[in-house]
Amino acid sequence: MKSMVIGGAGFIGSHLCEALLEAGDEVYCIDDFSLGSRENLARCIERPSFRFYEANASVRKDLLPIFREVQPEQVFHLAANSDIQASASNPGVEYQRTYTTTYLVLDCMRECGVKKLFFSSTSAVYGDKRNILLTEATPSLEPVSYYGAAKLGSEALISAFSYMNDFSSLVFRFPNVIGPHLTHGVIFDFVHRLRQNPHELVILGNGRQTKPYIYVDDLIEAILKFRDSPQGVTIYNLGVDGATQVTHIAEIIVEEMGLHDVKFKYTGGESGWKGDVPCFRYDLTKIHEAGWRAKLSSDEAVRRTVREYLQSGGSK
Amino acid sequence: MKSMVIGGAGFIGSHLCEALLEAGDEVYCIDDFSLGSRENLARCIERPSFRFYEANASVRKDLLPIFREVQPEQVFHLAANSDIQASASNPGVEYQRTYTTTYLVLDCMRECGVKKLFFSSTSAVYGDKRNILLTEATPSLEPVSYYGAAKLGSEALISAFSYMNDFSSLVFRFPNVIGPHLTHGVIFDFVHRLRQNPHELVILGNGRQTKPYIYVDDLIEAILKFRDSPQGVTIYNLGVDGATQVTHIAEIIVEEMGLHDVKFKYTGGESGWKGDVPCFRYDLTKIHEAGWRAKLSSDEAVRRTVREYLQSGGSK
Repeated sequence: MKSMVIGGAGFIGSHLCEALLEAGDEVYCIDDFSLGSRENLARCIERPSFRFYEANASVRKDLLPIFREVQPEQVFHLAANSDIQASASNPGVEYQRTYTTTYLVLDCMRECGVKKLFFSSTSAVYGDKRNILLTEATPSLEPVSYYGAAKLGSEALISAFSYMNDFSSLVFRFPNVIGPHLTHGVIFDFVHRLRQNPHELVILGNGRQTKPYIYVDDLIEAILKFRDSPQGVTIYNLGVDGATQVTHIAEIIVEEMGLHDVKFKYTGGESGWKGDVPCFRYDLTKIHEAGWRAKLSSDEAVRRTVREYLQSGGSK
Repeated sequence: MKSMVIGGAGFIGSHLCEALLEAGDEVYCIDDFSLGSRENLARCIERPSFRFYEANASVRKDLLPIFREVQPEQVFHLAANSDIQASASNPGVEYQRTYTTTYLVLDCMRECGVKKLFFSSTSAVYGDKRNILLTEATPSLEPVSYYGAAKLGSEALISAFSYMNDFSSLVFRFPNVIGPHLTHGVIFDFVHRLRQNPHELVILGNGRQTKPYIYVDDLIEAILKFRDSPQGVTIYNLGVDGATQVTHIAEIIVEEMGLHDVKFKYTGGESGWKGDVPCFRYDLTKIHEAGWRAKLSSDEAVRRTVREYLQSGGSK
């Protein structure tokens, strides 16, 4: 299978490239290194069935020729701004890097007759529905972040393009994803702050924000398991058992770093920043009934990620 | 009130400009005449409290200076590609003219501190849900047209921008809107085809497509009634009693044109074209309980529009 991974040098994309190579695919990876890096692809680049293109997927004249040359059979679209906090003050980042990339990927698929798509969506499409167990059919999606809005807009595009062009599209609404190659987020931040000051840790919000964290290997396994989806759009909430409170993440990091008597200082408020959804819970019935279940719980995913991050030197 | 109407020279926009002037507003109208026309503004242009800007709302450097100069208190955003059939073969039209305009309007509002928005959305955001009575909270919005996708993406943007910047946003999901200044659509098409050949009329699909048609005056009245919406996003399905079958529209036009023995020739299939939703029905409980109800039924709106169109000479 000729597979194209857009955003393939990023955190999740690079793990996916490795897994697709393992599965025997030819992998054509596109990235502009805005968030991804060459280092993430170290284990791919030596493989004969791997090819890398440095290109910006939000520019048609850069993207379309690669589609024409490769003629992929399946596209995995993971290019996006993945740092919600960073785009809160600049919605243009989401317009360009999240929505426009999706539009162009879909339009290149249409022009080149590619019919199979995987898309990485997010819990942020739901908005702040902290008192509802979220199913794929929960009504009134009301994103509160520009990131969530661009991802919901992308899902809308996938719906129309799939109908108009007979695509088979698989959409996962990810929770927080963690593991090796992580470039930002709470674990990353806390480790770096504790290295600067091992006596005190500033925690955004009241520390009671509680979200499910999935380990990246579990997520990649799910993508490969469901990649042959039927014609039309298939959406899954992808998640894990349990959820982890921000303060508990801090406690795990303090413990794994071997620190003692660290004072947690809270900035206050229910959310870490405006546009952050402090709590959400997925109903996972649909994906469980389809035969997939995460191996690691949220707490286990956090502890394993922290441990690996510290062992790797924790520089990135 | 300083009101800005974007897409104000178009079919609905021009009626809205007139109504806002009648209500005593200063009206700042922006249009690029891609679908609108100067003729539509004939009754506005002479008014001292009306000002027109010829500009493309999908270009930031053209739009932002007008926002800065006008400093509007309320924005009515009606700029979009409104011809679903025309964009079916070119999704880029919707990316540019429907989604990008919305993004830029919202971003200009953010930059200039404008807090009040009206947005014209559409039944097309629901997709093909012909067996469901559509409420504002119907789940799983799955647009089948690029137009519906761009409007749903626009609603997602409005959700995030409203939350992040404390906007008060009013969103109407329009059905088919008809009346004077109409530029395309089934009534327009049928009249012109019957003038060319008064013996036979080709009807796309099987003629059993059945949709609610609202007369533009009813719609404008609703916009003015609800323009002071609370902070956050308020969505209404806007509709009328009943719905009108395409074949019945043809019958009304034949009758009003005084023709006899016209043979209807159907191209077949349930939809007029791919991406067309052949039937939908709105649950209007929410807007009725808020105190608004259309004066004309769907059939009455069609007949009145046909009659006025023929009386006006039917050239536009």
